[in-house]
Amino acid sequence: MNDLSVAELGEIESLRRTVAHLKTGEHAIVGSGDDAAVVSATDSFLVSTDTLVENHDFKLDWSSGFELGFKSVASNLADIAAMGAKPTVLVIAMVVPKTTKISWLEAFADGLQAACDQLSPGAAIVGGDLASGDQVVISVTVHGQLEGLNPVLRSGAKVGDVVAVCGPLGKAACGLALLQSGNQDLIRSYDDWVEAQLKPSPPIDQGVAANQAGATAMLDVSDGLVRDLGRIAKASSVTLEIDRSQLSGYEAMLDLPAQSLGVDTLSWVLQGGEDHSLLATFPASATLPRSFKIIGKVVAKAAHDVLLDGQPVADAGWDSIAGN
Amino acid sequence: MNDLSVAELGEIESLRRTVAHLKTGEHAIVGSGDDAAVVSATDSFLVSTDTLVENHDFKLDWSSGFELGFKSVASNLADIAAMGAKPTVLVIAMVVPKTTKISWLEAFADGLQAACDQLSPGAAIVGGDLASGDQVVISVTVHGQLEGLNPVLRSGAKVGDVVAVCGPLGKAACGLALLQSGNQDLIRSYDDWVEAQLKPSPPIDQGVAANQAGATAMLDVSDGLVRDLGRIAKASSVTLEIDRSQLSGYEAMLDLPAQSLGVDTLSWVLQGGEDHSLLATFPASATLPRSFKIIGKVVAKAAHDVLLDGQPVADAGWDSIAGN
Repeated sequence: MNDLSVAELGEIESLRRTVAHLKTGEHAIVGSGDDAAVVSATDSFLVSTDTLVENHDFKLDWSSGFELGFKSVASNLADIAAMGAKPTVLVIAMVVPKTTKISWLEAFADGLQAACDQLSPGAAIVGGDLASGDQVVISVTVHGQLEGLNPVLRSGAKVGDVVAVCGPLGKAACGLALLQSGNQDLIRSYDDWVEAQLKPSPPIDQGVAANQAGATAMLDVSDGLVRDLGRIAKASSVTLEIDRSQLSGYEAMLDLPAQSLGVDTLSWVLQGGEDHSLLATFPASATLPRSFKIIGKVVAKAAHDVLLDGQPVADAGWDSIAGN
Repeated sequence: MNDLSVAELGEIESLRRTVAHLKTGEHAIVGSGDDAAVVSATDSFLVSTDTLVENHDFKLDWSSGFELGFKSVASNLADIAAMGAKPTVLVIAMVVPKTTKISWLEAFADGLQAACDQLSPGAAIVGGDLASGDQVVISVTVHGQLEGLNPVLRSGAKVGDVVAVCGPLGKAACGLALLQSGNQDLIRSYDDWVEAQLKPSPPIDQGVAANQAGATAMLDVSDGLVRDLGRIAKASSVTLEIDRSQLSGYEAMLDLPAQSLGVDTLSWVLQGGEDHSLLATFPASATLPRSFKIIGKVVAKAAHDVLLDGQPVADAGWDSIAGN
């Protein structure tokens, strides 16, 4: 059977075949196929949107359709987890060149579904849109529900709180550096780090756990630890002081590929984006979920938003427009 | 003051300045600026997503930023209206080239807000994302709520129902033809038709009105009357029979520009897309909202999904991938 392009199949049939790779989930009252989906809700819902653009956020040479679908969902689920909430339904708006093969779209859909199944069972894609354009653009809008809790904002960190992380730091940036090196031997040897970049698995269920444990502020680390610490600091009008010795475990995880590439591990840990790990503050008295590791504390607002062992530290994280 | 580009301002500042042109609305509990917005809901919400791509769905030479913002919201609000529901909140994912001027983005935001204010007061943009890419891509995800009613699906049309339309047919296609003619005199003379294409004003509040009046099936006419009639016919397992004499009013509205361009009005009425008028079926006994005009009736499923004066009619509507 021929692997037809979306132009050969048309929008309707391409969408139909793609949607056939998705499951309904437990929240849709009316699923895809009408003008809108109808989704069950309690007294509120959460919504967030994020976009991945070819050659800016990913390269088709590096990512398979499956990996890209997985990552699109994973990074968005993390935004709901970072509010201390549980993901429910997603809608996906895709732009693809007319030459895109239906097999690629089907693999992409498999990746969307796999990310739901593995990272947030019960969450599901309930709608989407397929359009043609010069480059691949993936816009995901994710929804969530608060499990009878209040949302955890960025603005609630209090002086005396501890700062803690759930998930890796710098691993996705290390994977990106491996891919950028073009060294196929290294890419094969360090496939676990490359996968952290291409197919990240953020700890989605720990968002509600952190909320239940009393998290006062939270976000997911998408643009680098220091930059995202700075966001909590600014929103909460405090300074976050990180203890470098608490970062040694994160650095150690990157030692082998760092040595191969001749790179400093600390810059990855401090400035690397796209890990989508959860970064939260908790009262010092709180019992943290075991998955969270303390890396510092909240102090009174000082001249700098973020301090490392008492010293200012550059953010140099990722700006999705400027690309630096 | 210089009109800086988004690359010069960076994502954060560009977003901040754009968001400053938007109002909060009445549904957001937590608005933009955190990982997700929190939106009030009753027992369910509706969600739909749609994408506009530069040079496929619009041209920057033809549309101002304001018009494009307005149309992006208007066409999405229509998807909620077409479910018989009321729009509540929207999130917008934007891809723009790095050279895009902030003044353009601000005008775009003004257009987003104006469409909410004029077409669905109380609806508001509660979140968004800004990324850079080779061409402008606008993905809008719109939400709505059922006002204690059931959603009006495409699948509920019953034999004996009447078929009715609220809003123009073929007017946006006529506007597109005027723009494509490149004839600036005609474009200026027929600015009302051009505006129907560039800045459509679908009858959003008539969605709930149709639902209250007992509409059995509904959608908004985005891809041409015949194609969209076919969708209701297929989903409902019926045939829709249109009475050509009932289309004469729609044709008459297009007479002047059609004569200037030497074009047949009926093809615009039957196949023209992007009017986003509401197309619905009602029981013959229903009292239709005054804004709805009867154009035909629902008959038992026949060899063809759509009949015009008893004869089959080609759809030839718009496929957003194939572009025909």
